[in-house]
Amino acid sequence: MLISIYLIAITAEAMSGALAAGRRNMDMFGVALIAFVTALGGGTVRDMLLGNYPINWTQHPGYIYITVSAGLFTMVIARYMRRLHQLFLVLDSLGLIAFTIIGCEVALKLDYEIPVVIMAGLITGIFGGILRDILCNRTPQVLRHELYASVSLVVALLYLYMQHKHVHHDTSLLAAFSVGLALRMSAIRWRWSLPVFSYDPARWDD
Amino acid sequence: MLISIYLIAITAEAMSGALAAGRRNMDMFGVALIAFVTALGGGTVRDMLLGNYPINWTQHPGYIYITVSAGLFTMVIARYMRRLHQLFLVLDSLGLIAFTIIGCEVALKLDYEIPVVIMAGLITGIFGGILRDILCNRTPQVLRHELYASVSLVVALLYLYMQHKHVHHDTSLLAAFSVGLALRMSAIRWRWSLPVFSYDPARWDD
Amino acid sequence: MLISIYLIAITAEAMSGALAAGRRNMDMFGVALIAFVTALGGGTVRDMLLGNYPINWTQHPGYIYITVSAGLFTMVIARYMRRLHQLFLVLDSLGLIAFTIIGCEVALKLDYEIPVVIMAGLITGIFGGILRDILCNRTPQVLRHELYASVSLVVALLYLYMQHKHVHHDTSLLAAFSVGLALRMSAIRWRWSLPVFSYDPARWDD
Repeated sequence: MLISIYLIAITAEAMSGALAAGRRNMDMFGVALIAFVTALGGGTVRDMLLGNYPINWTQHPGYIYITVSAGLFTMVIARYMRRLHQLFLVLDSLGLIAFTIIGCEVALKLDYEIPVVIMAGLITGIFGGILRDILCNRTPQVLRHELYASVSLVVALLYLYMQHKHVHHDTSLLAAFSVGLALRMSAIRWRWSLPVFSYDPARWDD
Repeated sequence: MLISIYLIAITAEAMSGALAAGRRNMDMFGVALIAFVTALGGGTVRDMLLGNYPINWTQHPGYIYITVSAGLFTMVIARYMRRLHQLFLVLDSLGLIAFTIIGCEVALKLDYEIPVVIMAGLITGIFGGILRDILCNRTPQVLRHELYASVSLVVALLYLYMQHKHVHHDTSLLAAFSVGLALRMSAIRWRWSLPVFSYDPARWDD
Repeated sequence: MLISIYLIAITAEAMSGALAAGRRNMDMFGVALIAFVTALGGGTVRDMLLGNYPINWTQHPGYIYITVSAGLFTMVIARYMRRLHQLFLVLDSLGLIAFTIIGCEVALKLDYEIPVVIMAGLITGIFGGILRDILCNRTPQVLRHELYASVSLVVALLYLYMQHKHVHHDTSLLAAFSVGLALRMSAIRWRWSLPVFSYDPARWDD
C-alpha cells in the first residue's frame, strides 16, 4: 500500500513543482527538472544526510520518468487545475504523510536515534517543497503556511509511538494517514496555523 | 583533450560566476566563492548524488586555485567583457558540453543505469549555474533561457548512443562537441527556445 | 574548551537563524528549522563534501534540541535583542572562529590536502549563514558584508600555520580566537571591508 501511495505522492509533488515553475515562466526543461526535484528532492536530501547510498531514485530510474512526465503533463492540464484543486490538496497531503513515514522507516532501519529518525521523516516530507521554492526563488511556503510541516511532525511522532508500542504495521499506517489527513484538511478548511514570528528590526533593533 | 577542455570549462564557468556576483555587489570573497561554486558545484552535486567519494576537486586542490584566480581576475577585466562576449559564449558552451560528457562517464564507470547516467551528465552540466543563481538570489537562468540545459541533454544522448554503438572515443567526443556547439550557437543566434510554461493562478486557479 | 565554545556557537547561530526567519514572518516551525539549519548546516555541508559519515549531528541528537530550543526561545526574547546586540555579535564571532577551527580539524584528520582543509574550515564557518539566507530568500550576507568570511580565512590560515609549527594546541586556539575576534570586532567598529565588485552589464556589457 505504501508503494502505491508513494507513486501517487511523487506524481502529486511533481505537479506542484511544475505549477511553481510555470509561475516563473520556465521552459519545458525547467518544468521537468523542478518536477523531478520537488518529487524526489526530499528523499535525496535524507539519503545524503544519513549516508544511505546508493540514493533511492538512482536504483529506480522509473521514478525519473514518472516525475518528468507528471511535470510535462501538468503543462497540458494547467487550465483545469482549478477544478482539480481539492483533489490536488488531498493527493499532496497523502504525499506528505507517505514521505514522512518512509523517511522515518529509512532512518530506523539504519539504527539512528529517535530525534534523528524524526528529522529524517520531516526532511523527506518537506524538503522537496523547500527545494522547489529555492529553485523558484521564493521563500519556502512550507515554513510559512498553515499546518504543513507540523502535520509531518505529528505523523512522525504518532507513527513512531505506535511502532514503539508494537501496534500492527497496517494499523499504524492507517492511523497515521487518517490523523495526518484530517489535521491537514482541517488546517486548510479553518485556516489553522502556528504562531508566526514577525521580527522587524526597525521597530526593535537589528 | 577532455582534460584541457575541462580546465578551460572551469575557468569560463568561474568567470560567469564572478560576473553574477558582481551584479550583486559582492566583495572579493563572495566573488571568489561563487566562482568556485559555479565552476565545481555541478560535479560536486553529481558526486554527492552518486556517492562518488572522495569528491573530485578535493583530490585536485589545483582546481580551487584556478577557479578562485579566474574569479578574482574577472574583477580586473570586467570592463572588457563586452568585447570578449562572443568568445565567452563559446567557452561557456564548450564547458557545458565537457561537463556533460564527464558527468556521463563518471556515472557509467559506477555502473548506474542509463537514465541515471543521463541525469548525471545533465546535473554536472547545469548545476554549477543553478547554484550560482541560488547564491545570487535569482531564478536559475538555465531553466528559462534558450537551449542551454537542452544542449546538455542532446549531448548526453548523442554521446551515450555513440558509446553504445562502440564508436571510437575520440570520434564520439568530436561529434558531441560539434553538435553541441552548433546547437547552442544556433539557439543564441536565432533565439531558439523551448515552449515556455506560464502559469498564472489568478487567471486560472490556485 | 572548544566543546563549550561550540555549544555557545550553535546557540548563537541558531538565534541568528531565528531572527532571519522572523523577518520573513515564518511560523514557529520555520523558525525552529532555520535555527537548526543555520547552526548545524555548515558542519553538515562539510561532512557531506568530505564524505565524513555519519554526519556529526546525527550522532549527537542533543544538538537538535539545543538549536531548536534556541530558535524558539529567540521568539520570546526578540524584543530585547537590541540591548543584547553587542553580546550577540561577540558570540556570533566566537561561533565563526570555533566552526572554522573544527572544520579544519575534521579535514586534517581525514588527511585531506591543505587547500581542502582550508575550504573545510571556511565552509563550516560560513555555510550555515549562507543556507539561512538561501532559505530566507535573500542574497547571502556573509558574501557582502564586512570581514566575516575573511575572518574565517585568516583564522584557518593562522591555525594551520601554528599546527604546522607544532605550537601547543591550547596556544594555537587562544591565538586564533584572539586574532579572529579582534579582527572581526575591528571590522564592525570601523566598517572595514574588502573591495566590492560591482558589475553593471548595462554600463559595460552583458
